[in-house]
Amino acid sequence: MHVLITGAAGMIGRKLTARLAKDGALNGKPIRKLTLIDVVAPLQPGDFAGAVETAVADLSQPGIAETAVAQRPDVIFHLAGVVSGEAETDFEKGYRVNLDGSRALLEAIRSSGGGYMPKVVFTSSIAVFGAPFPRSIPDDFHLTPLTSYGTQKAMVELMLADYNRRGFIEGVGVRLPTICVRPGRPNKAASGFFSGIIREPLAGEEALLPVPETVRHTHASPRAAVGFLIHAAGLTRAQLGPRINLTMPGVSCTIAEQIEALTRIAGPKVAARIKRVPDALVMRIVSGWPERVDATRAMALGFKAESSFDEIIRVHIEEELGGKIAA
Amino acid sequence: MHVLITGAAGMIGRKLTARLAKDGALNGKPIRKLTLIDVVAPLQPGDFAGAVETAVADLSQPGIAETAVAQRPDVIFHLAGVVSGEAETDFEKGYRVNLDGSRALLEAIRSSGGGYMPKVVFTSSIAVFGAPFPRSIPDDFHLTPLTSYGTQKAMVELMLADYNRRGFIEGVGVRLPTICVRPGRPNKAASGFFSGIIREPLAGEEALLPVPETVRHTHASPRAAVGFLIHAAGLTRAQLGPRINLTMPGVSCTIAEQIEALTRIAGPKVAARIKRVPDALVMRIVSGWPERVDATRAMALGFKAESSFDEIIRVHIEEELGGKIAA
Repeated sequence: MHVLITGAAGMIGRKLTARLAKDGALNGKPIRKLTLIDVVAPLQPGDFAGAVETAVADLSQPGIAETAVAQRPDVIFHLAGVVSGEAETDFEKGYRVNLDGSRALLEAIRSSGGGYMPKVVFTSSIAVFGAPFPRSIPDDFHLTPLTSYGTQKAMVELMLADYNRRGFIEGVGVRLPTICVRPGRPNKAASGFFSGIIREPLAGEEALLPVPETVRHTHASPRAAVGFLIHAAGLTRAQLGPRINLTMPGVSCTIAEQIEALTRIAGPKVAARIKRVPDALVMRIVSGWPERVDATRAMALGFKAESSFDEIIRVHIEEELGGKIAA
Repeated sequence: MHVLITGAAGMIGRKLTARLAKDGALNGKPIRKLTLIDVVAPLQPGDFAGAVETAVADLSQPGIAETAVAQRPDVIFHLAGVVSGEAETDFEKGYRVNLDGSRALLEAIRSSGGGYMPKVVFTSSIAVFGAPFPRSIPDDFHLTPLTSYGTQKAMVELMLADYNRRGFIEGVGVRLPTICVRPGRPNKAASGFFSGIIREPLAGEEALLPVPETVRHTHASPRAAVGFLIHAAGLTRAQLGPRINLTMPGVSCTIAEQIEALTRIAGPKVAARIKRVPDALVMRIVSGWPERVDATRAMALGFKAESSFDEIIRVHIEEELGGKIAA
């Protein structure tokens, strides 16, 4: 089994690499080789017996996708892409990386011929949906993204389904909810506070909450996201049918419920590190985001998220803090 | 008012050109110039006082789209594309013409700058939907096309909405139902019989019916289709909101109801020219097509189709047969 990961240096890419290296197998078969591609140098996994090849490369540049699939990886996790903020501020880069890069990968596979038909797991996003929403977004809700990022993800989903239908790939699109708790330093994403109000207090730092505690959102941990990708790689064409782009499950909760969970796990002193500083702009952006998704199909296909926000916090404490909370 | 029509030599393109030439105006403003582009030479409209420029050109080739918008047409009807059968048999051509050609047009507009923001009316199709369907397809039904053609139309719809949202164009996507009665000779489209069983008997010829009379489908006349495009050109950004891709209304009826209408209008002798010759392949293809669409939004926005299949037949007799039926 040869596995290719694009966007391998990103947060999910690193965690997926680590998990595959640790498991040493995928779909019940030993992994003999990992190929890791990103525009910044991917890290070598520490504890992996197989071969590892890393490349600093941009799939949207001529010839790169062909090189990436030349050794015919059996499973391709296609995570590479620019994030929503950057796709919005740099229109051309967003289309070049998120659309053209993905298309180049699909075309490189198609044109390699000889019956090559890898599994392609594509990370999409619930940004393919746009407000106004029903109370909960059903699996058959239409695609009306309100960002260039969401547009590019939806376009690639459509192309993935067509290449799958035509027999060029075995495709599956995984629409991730907001990943929480995101490790690392605060970033400028409008969604950053969902992680920040957990991560910073647990690390002994103050966190700003720019929206009311009534705001509801759907979350899954980085560990759950990696689990989605690995589970997706094991699904068969018969299981998926023609509708291969799936909304992932998650924990839907309000900010108040997030804070209650933090208080339960880490105590009121930690939760008191959250400072309410209302921000009208962030509130306006967040009001256009989905509150709940049904994810009925994904759950029927065996995808599993956490069952509570408490569990999401515990995953973060275990994976990122070595089990320790700053008192 | 300068109007550009791409795909001007096609059936709808010719009828749209004729209608605009006859009206001499669009959105209440005189048309001073019509620019007609197609890969085959567009015909000059007979009775038009303004200027007409025609070009034989393929938008997907370098520089063509830039030339097409260099004179900054106020309204662009983007009809150019290969049909569903060809997009299925020639995968590369379908993506090149239907996706890359449309993207080249949008990019040429965006990069021309200087506040240029034309109205772009794009002909999409209900092929953006794919079975299984609910009893009637609602306006918020998801995009899961089952053809490369439907995939390309859905991808351009998404891109159109993003370019509209970003202020590069005033876009509107018009999802046409099956156009019936299609004039001209029978073609090889699987949907051809819907028109054939009306057109051929009215012309004194035999027509084959490959599916049971219980098959239900949604139809609009070529005249209604042209009406949709012209109405779309007059809609404002405020009327449309962010969801600019609209499912058009039509007449939903069974084959039996089509034949009853033909009998009412032309008599049993004409209707007797329909021969039942079941074809399992056609039946299988047709069973994946939508039977009904809600088109609630389009109707609320003022789009109008025929109110009965009788009316659709009468439009054909009037427009194509000079009012005469072959007895």
